[in-house]
Amino acid sequence: EVVGSITMVYDHHTPGLAERLDKIQHRHRNEIVSTMHVHMDHDTCLEIVAVRGQGRIVANMADCMRGLKGVRHGKLTCVTVAKTQDAKTD
Amino acid sequence: EVVGSITMVYDHHTPGLAERLDKIQHRHRNEIVSTMHVHMDHDTCLEIVAVRGQGRIVANMADCMRGLKGVRHGKLTCVTVAKTQDAKTD
Amino acid sequence: EVVGSITMVYDHHTPGLAERLDKIQHRHRNEIVSTMHVHMDHDTCLEIVAVRGQGRIVANMADCMRGLKGVRHGKLTCVTVAKTQDAKTD
Amino acid sequence: EVVGSITMVYDHHTPGLAERLDKIQHRHRNEIVSTMHVHMDHDTCLEIVAVRGQGRIVANMADCMRGLKGVRHGKLTCVTVAKTQDAKTD
Repeated sequence: EVVGSITMVYDHHTPGLAERLDKIQHRHRNEIVSTMHVHMDHDTCLEIVAVRGQGRIVANMADCMRGLKGVRHGKLTCVTVAKTQDAKTD
Repeated sequence: EVVGSITMVYDHHTPGLAERLDKIQHRHRNEIVSTMHVHMDHDTCLEIVAVRGQGRIVANMADCMRGLKGVRHGKLTCVTVAKTQDAKTD
Repeated sequence: EVVGSITMVYDHHTPGLAERLDKIQHRHRNEIVSTMHVHMDHDTCLEIVAVRGQGRIVANMADCMRGLKGVRHGKLTCVTVAKTQDAKTD
Repeated sequence: EVVGSITMVYDHHTPGLAERLDKIQHRHRNEIVSTMHVHMDHDTCLEIVAVRGQGRIVANMADCMRGLKGVRHGKLTCVTVAKTQDAKTD
């Protein structure tokens, strides 16, 4: 079990890229908490995906997105955590 | 000058919707701080846009997005603030 | 079951406010997907909480946060959705 | 000029930590676009800061936050971009 983020910088004008990213993320919605998107300038988007899940699956998803044409930078940062038991006793 | 949010619930499968939303947001990137996106379930997305700018422009942008086919719910919440002078003296 | 957002504008300098908000949110972490925070200017913060859960609990949480000293504006926007079954068959 | 993210995992119960993080971020609000916060479990928070600004200043801010007691993991990921001219001609 890992938690962390995938940080991507990509070219907003690449045809079909937004839809491809969206599709991959929807398929992995169990590993994605939420996504933060910043429209940086006329061409560039910064997208940061907060992830939590099995390390191997998260790494696969990051690889998929990084490999898309138009993604100029993609980096997975994560840390291993104990599987949450989260008894909610506060 | 207003700050606030635009909250949208939309159907992820509507063809072209993601690109239309992206295009409108890029055109208004001066009024958008950042966008938070949650892939809710197989069909549904929750998208929340943090906005800051001239009230009339922000309201226009909200209307544009709300009017798109596939957007099931769209709501602008904002509050008027004094124009930031932000002398950064802390 | 509802999904939506709680949008708050608050005064960053109010003693103890950040901790009170954090405490309330932690207690309701089952209803909170994630929180987006914008440091607007020297004094003001915009905080937007993406929520999903039982309508009554979400409304209670919004009321709790709205009632804190220093919160200048607090608004819950949400929409009723069918309980997610989310069979993940895509 | 860089854009990117600072990803932190921290212990929510450390006294004063939330306020210290908030203070550092407010001082650097020119370099911070927005912050995404996830209440992971009873103890742990994931906080991801979207940054844009001068590389040296951003790195300093990351170091400051990473050095606080209670922050179990802190990682800066960024990429150099050309200074935005952003003539807004779309």
